[in-house]
Amino acid sequence: MPRLAAILPSCLLIVAGPAFAHTAAPVPSRRTAPPAVTVDPKVAALQTRALADDTAWDITEGLTTEIGPRATGGSARQAAARDWSVAKLKALGFRNVHIETYTLPNVWERGVETAEVVAPFPQPLRLAALGNSGATPAGGLTAPVVFFPTLNDLIQVPDGSLAGKIAFVSNAMAPTQDGSSYGSQGPARFVGPNIAARKGAAAIVIRSIGTDHGRGPHTGTTNFDPGVAPIPAAALSVSDAANLERMIRRGRPVTLRLTLTPRFVGPRQSGNVVADVPGSDPAAGIVLIGGHLDSWELGTGAIDDAAGLGITAAAARLVMETGRPRRTIRVVFFGDEEIGGFGGEAYAKAHANERHAIATESDFGADRVWRVETNFTGTGAPIADRLAAALAPLGIVRGTQPAGGGTDVEAVLATGVAGLELNQSGLRYFDLHHTPEDTLEQIDPAQLRQNVAAWATMLQIVGNAPETIEAVPPRR
Amino acid sequence: MPRLAAILPSCLLIVAGPAFAHTAAPVPSRRTAPPAVTVDPKVAALQTRALADDTAWDITEGLTTEIGPRATGGSARQAAARDWSVAKLKALGFRNVHIETYTLPNVWERGVETAEVVAPFPQPLRLAALGNSGATPAGGLTAPVVFFPTLNDLIQVPDGSLAGKIAFVSNAMAPTQDGSSYGSQGPARFVGPNIAARKGAAAIVIRSIGTDHGRGPHTGTTNFDPGVAPIPAAALSVSDAANLERMIRRGRPVTLRLTLTPRFVGPRQSGNVVADVPGSDPAAGIVLIGGHLDSWELGTGAIDDAAGLGITAAAARLVMETGRPRRTIRVVFFGDEEIGGFGGEAYAKAHANERHAIATESDFGADRVWRVETNFTGTGAPIADRLAAALAPLGIVRGTQPAGGGTDVEAVLATGVAGLELNQSGLRYFDLHHTPEDTLEQIDPAQLRQNVAAWATMLQIVGNAPETIEAVPPRR
Repeated sequence: MPRLAAILPSCLLIVAGPAFAHTAAPVPSRRTAPPAVTVDPKVAALQTRALADDTAWDITEGLTTEIGPRATGGSARQAAARDWSVAKLKALGFRNVHIETYTLPNVWERGVETAEVVAPFPQPLRLAALGNSGATPAGGLTAPVVFFPTLNDLIQVPDGSLAGKIAFVSNAMAPTQDGSSYGSQGPARFVGPNIAARKGAAAIVIRSIGTDHGRGPHTGTTNFDPGVAPIPAAALSVSDAANLERMIRRGRPVTLRLTLTPRFVGPRQSGNVVADVPGSDPAAGIVLIGGHLDSWELGTGAIDDAAGLGITAAAARLVMETGRPRRTIRVVFFGDEEIGGFGGEAYAKAHANERHAIATESDFGADRVWRVETNFTGTGAPIADRLAAALAPLGIVRGTQPAGGGTDVEAVLATGVAGLELNQSGLRYFDLHHTPEDTLEQIDPAQLRQNVAAWATMLQIVGNAPETIEAVPPRR
Repeated sequence: MPRLAAILPSCLLIVAGPAFAHTAAPVPSRRTAPPAVTVDPKVAALQTRALADDTAWDITEGLTTEIGPRATGGSARQAAARDWSVAKLKALGFRNVHIETYTLPNVWERGVETAEVVAPFPQPLRLAALGNSGATPAGGLTAPVVFFPTLNDLIQVPDGSLAGKIAFVSNAMAPTQDGSSYGSQGPARFVGPNIAARKGAAAIVIRSIGTDHGRGPHTGTTNFDPGVAPIPAAALSVSDAANLERMIRRGRPVTLRLTLTPRFVGPRQSGNVVADVPGSDPAAGIVLIGGHLDSWELGTGAIDDAAGLGITAAAARLVMETGRPRRTIRVVFFGDEEIGGFGGEAYAKAHANERHAIATESDFGADRVWRVETNFTGTGAPIADRLAAALAPLGIVRGTQPAGGGTDVEAVLATGVAGLELNQSGLRYFDLHHTPEDTLEQIDPAQLRQNVAAWATMLQIVGNAPETIEAVPPRR
């Protein structure tokens, strides 16, 4: 799926492991005994402390309560969140805590978003504009609907055949533990609007890329090719999409009125927050971890991604308390991940001259970590063995694929830095992802603490490993 | 709780059994053998057919898809739903299908509804105005919040002490199978605004009367005493209320901006839909069943109460197919239940000269029936025994309290007509009640069919019982 690979740098790379395969440490088969490894005796005590530690909760609760939605795209609330984070990270004892700014080229801002079936069954529908959507006239756009059960059905129709029509692309999405259904169903959002625009559609609505059955639409970014004028593009809630589909299947023409008034507001300054646990051996390379500070504005960004910030900062702090690690542990709260990883790109550019040993992020909610994967090779391979053994008591399995990455660390990984994934269960994630329901109420404190224990374990082992962690072949 | 009893005619009477206790058939204790009863041999076959019948689904799916929200208060969509229902009930074979109109005195209509924390933690909150709420200025009302963990805390404060303030009443609500937590927590909505207005508050927000943890606010009616000017009154979603409570517990003053623009639009005509399965013995009295056709406009009114219409109509049709019953079975799709049972009152007035044998409604969702209760006395007592025995194979227990009633049949029951309840499980009901999430997607077809089987069983036994069903003492 070359098209998908092209999209994924601005999405979730973890769903596309094989596309980024590197030469990796051999993974024991099921029928051979695991290698005998000696785990750092500090790890068990660290896990016990982590499973009783509320720092991750405090950060997640604090950001969602005191800041709330931190709209992606250099918003004022994202700036407030940076200041909040600097104060919090300093209070937690991190060093070198600072903001690194960058400029976003042309920011998209959400406006009014309403829809209604005009005929034959008049009723309102709930939807949310997709990032980069075009606008309808202020008074709305009324047009007949053309139904496409899947993205593939849309792709089949001739150019120009959708002139004056609203395309509706539906697509059932089932929960998967590894999040892979986002990779298979996501393109309806990622590229559906661009395809519909090329075929002449006046607008497009899609069934939300979500696994719930509720009324909260799932927003997210879409992209139009250069030269393709953005058309109005929005996601109906799964329930509203099902309702519209039932109307359409009755066989009578269906007319929608759509009002979307987003706009582009020009360049804006934004930034990352960087904090260090300084290591004793600068030559050993930095262990880069973190998550993203921006959020979609419909919810309060608890699972996406205040929790990732809480988990990684809490784990780094616990390791800091055990003594100075060999490698510098750097926690970055990246900005503007949701619109394409601008914070991650800016970080990679600003820190291109530093050696990074590994880079990995937490950006898949707050449910338990169920799997660990690395792409460590050569001298780093025994570290992966020790890590797998140390994570097993937390109920974490060792995956059989080399680690991929995620949007925020992708630019660093692309230079050949080794990667590692602590995969969270995705069975519930796409019920909530990019919806109004992404709030603190969705977070289970016990599972959040299990995440902290897994990350602390990783930092203790990787941060202190005496071996060299070798680079992997660059991706670009 | 005299105050609660005074409110309940416009709420759910089923939660207040003991307040309406009549002399009832003795219920067997757990340690004695149940009475030996002979069940109509037609019942088993009827249950088998009901458990495979999709009529209830068709009605629920049809109303939610083809009509959608049927706003309470004599709306145009409620009128469209009446026409839809007349056509549907005629097609199903009912006789005497017609609309009976009545006039609503002064209808309340929802307007804009937004809220935001202005300080110290600026962010938007999701809420919905309560029926009969007053309006803020069009540009909003900005005021400090006074927090009351429970309604009781609000009741304690002196008159006039809330001048210029927005009262916020929170209250945790846990799911209960019999819905009794609505009776204990509901008064925060039913009377909280009236109490806050009497104490001088500029406005009131309450935590939604709901058992979920989501962003969908639970609307519903509140009432102000004569002479008390309605103040702006709204329900925050449970998640938003929890967020606001977290802010308040940090100890700094919290200021809200509230914009609610509902208005009263004067009298409107509305109506009930009435349909009969004519019986062979007019003197035996009518078996009155049904649900309500109006809904709150945030959802599509699937569980509240398209399902109740579907269940009762489907059951009546199945019994009609077995042959002419002794008693006329009358299915009424009542109007405007949500604002105080106007349809039920109009029906009782229009049919005061007809003899009703029993009256009962289905208005508690679409989850399985778990319990049966009656208040049959004297010659009717053996019917209750036969009914309990016939419902047991559907997993239904016999309750130990005499039956209460519900808003729509309350006016008929008040005259001394016998009652009966087929109680649905309420464990999930208040996750959805009066929210945007009340849609078809929440209905489990298998549980819906179990309801139809229970109602068909009841209609077959009660509709054909050779005994007289005696009146009970009038409630008014």
